[in-house]
Amino acid sequence: MPVSTRAGTGTNQEAVRRHNLATMLRSVHQVGRTSRAHLTTTMALNRSTIADLASELEALGVLRHADPVATAPRAGRPSAGIEVVEGGPDVIAIDVGVDRVVVGRVGLGGRVLERAQRQLPVSPDPRDVGDVIAELVEETHQRPGGPLVGIGVSVPGVVRRTEGIVQFAPNLGWHDVGFAQVVADRIGRDVPIALGNDADLGARAEHFRGAGLGVDHLVYISGDVGIGAGVISGGAPLGGAGGFAGEVGHMAVDPEGLTCHCGNRGCWETKIGADAIARAIGAPADSVATLGAVLDAYVDDAGALDAIAADVGRGLATIVNMLNPQVVVLGGFLASLHRLVGADIVREMHDAAMQAPGRMVKICTPGLGQNSVLLGAAELAFEALLADPVGVLA
Amino acid sequence: MPVSTRAGTGTNQEAVRRHNLATMLRSVHQVGRTSRAHLTTTMALNRSTIADLASELEALGVLRHADPVATAPRAGRPSAGIEVVEGGPDVIAIDVGVDRVVVGRVGLGGRVLERAQRQLPVSPDPRDVGDVIAELVEETHQRPGGPLVGIGVSVPGVVRRTEGIVQFAPNLGWHDVGFAQVVADRIGRDVPIALGNDADLGARAEHFRGAGLGVDHLVYISGDVGIGAGVISGGAPLGGAGGFAGEVGHMAVDPEGLTCHCGNRGCWETKIGADAIARAIGAPADSVATLGAVLDAYVDDAGALDAIAADVGRGLATIVNMLNPQVVVLGGFLASLHRLVGADIVREMHDAAMQAPGRMVKICTPGLGQNSVLLGAAELAFEALLADPVGVLA
Repeated sequence: MPVSTRAGTGTNQEAVRRHNLATMLRSVHQVGRTSRAHLTTTMALNRSTIADLASELEALGVLRHADPVATAPRAGRPSAGIEVVEGGPDVIAIDVGVDRVVVGRVGLGGRVLERAQRQLPVSPDPRDVGDVIAELVEETHQRPGGPLVGIGVSVPGVVRRTEGIVQFAPNLGWHDVGFAQVVADRIGRDVPIALGNDADLGARAEHFRGAGLGVDHLVYISGDVGIGAGVISGGAPLGGAGGFAGEVGHMAVDPEGLTCHCGNRGCWETKIGADAIARAIGAPADSVATLGAVLDAYVDDAGALDAIAADVGRGLATIVNMLNPQVVVLGGFLASLHRLVGADIVREMHDAAMQAPGRMVKICTPGLGQNSVLLGAAELAFEALLADPVGVLA
Repeated sequence: MPVSTRAGTGTNQEAVRRHNLATMLRSVHQVGRTSRAHLTTTMALNRSTIADLASELEALGVLRHADPVATAPRAGRPSAGIEVVEGGPDVIAIDVGVDRVVVGRVGLGGRVLERAQRQLPVSPDPRDVGDVIAELVEETHQRPGGPLVGIGVSVPGVVRRTEGIVQFAPNLGWHDVGFAQVVADRIGRDVPIALGNDADLGARAEHFRGAGLGVDHLVYISGDVGIGAGVISGGAPLGGAGGFAGEVGHMAVDPEGLTCHCGNRGCWETKIGADAIARAIGAPADSVATLGAVLDAYVDDAGALDAIAADVGRGLATIVNMLNPQVVVLGGFLASLHRLVGADIVREMHDAAMQAPGRMVKICTPGLGQNSVLLGAAELAFEALLADPVGVLA
């Protein structure tokens, strides 16, 4: 929320100015490029204040003047454009999956400048993963870039963010791993490092610049061997008391179902997780970690996926009944599944959900493709800069 | 959040004063009686400002001086007490259940001053319910009281609050009923009337002055023929995009289960709703609407409830995994069930939930007994007064 600069003491004015600089940078970072006229409207400040703020962010090396941007037809002359700087500050975003790790160098505007990926062995040692990450960071930093302002790491597990600890990542076999420290030691750069859960970060990125842009109630469901969800409710992440909310893979959906690794019986994950889908299409068990690619190449009878589609739809109905979201984004291998049997999934969801919330929801694939989680990790890393660009850069 | 009065213009000072009056009234309304020393600490204002605010609220007829309240042992002399006025402003709270309606006259501090109840026929006509409510309002207003400042109505269904419409109340057989207007016409008092969902209001009251006091993440589950939930997350109600969130009765928990009135198969409500429990204990079908009383009188073999307890526990585990609450309050007939098989329910929940959220949660019965929903309706009715006591009373 921008604040008028007209009132207040000198100290207040300085705080207001830094707040407005942060707001402007965040706005342009979200869309990549916009017009000063648009910022004048959305920030409710006058044109000369906007111009002053823009000049200061240009001087900080984060924004720059751009070609005029056309406004609405016949709305007068185009307004001066403003965009994020190429070669400005960037972050390291790390997406640790069950079978592979992706490292990206990500610039303002959410541009993936460099991207490198490596396979991981089954149940990898956290220190070995740290070594792989260090190598990938070197690969993605061979060309010169702007100042590094943060590192964000996504992990498919339960994370205690403030302590940088992975409390439980069942599909990696990790318990109570101080992974933020492992990564910090390996990379050896003096910038803040933050850890997040993959589904939470996917939700964050899709909400900020993907399929959930402009939406206040969103669920992002990650399919990466297991099933998890990140929930945005009322525009803010739904964490629960300990940050553990969103474990939709462990909804109890069948009292006669298979035993889950969590110890319970008939979890949703036992019905629609990678193991279940691999069985349904007759794929080898060792293809589980790369199920998305297997599904993308799948050309056999989609009928083999009928039962899976029904179980996905029924589970989505429970989520829709409980959380009443506007958008549900199916990420990871669930995006590949959606391309094969999306219509069946949506029909089953509508059959099973209550009418009122069922009518409001759109089921879709990520707006950011394979990069939702990586870009969520990047947002985590950009947090300090976006909160106070002057404090971080000046 | 109280605001210091030292800075700002005259208009600002007036806004700050009214804000602080509202904050003080809400604090004392929540606990009924407290000390000025406590308010000085929690509102972060000095003693003379607190004394001025207290005097003004006394002049408005809502608070009064009380006997000194003991503070911590050996903390010096007791501080002056302050409490809500008897005979001060009150509200009409209406709790429409599936088989009965309760009307209460409720004063500040959440005191139920008068209470009257009447049975309802099956699938009652909304206008007939309005007539019953009007009679009960007369009954509860035979003795003189303070000024009436609002009417709050709870309904067991999906409510469009801003329009005062009951969109869908399956167990009453209501669709798109403008019930706020029906009640307003029958009662004929010129005060605001607000409508809410029973579980949402139960959650609100238990959070404000019941088992969830001081807790930011709470789920209240209502058992009144059907099953619903009100969710408080991060201290605020979880409504979802259309206010439909919390339909936990329609979690799909068994693909082979019975067909539910919502059209889906194997909803949690088909497993633990009043019909299922009545069948389990061999109670006649027409006892469904009064199941709480039937369970309270139940002295036969609790083993008949084993399967029900397991299904309640498994469903709670799903809720705990998805929402990670600190407290789950079992309301309505679920409170009666908890008294019979609470230990089994909690054990099953722990077996089925993930460890991290399972360890954090407490399963309990309402702190407000049978009055959770009625007191939630009262809070709805007190909203305007608590937001601006001067504006409403002066």
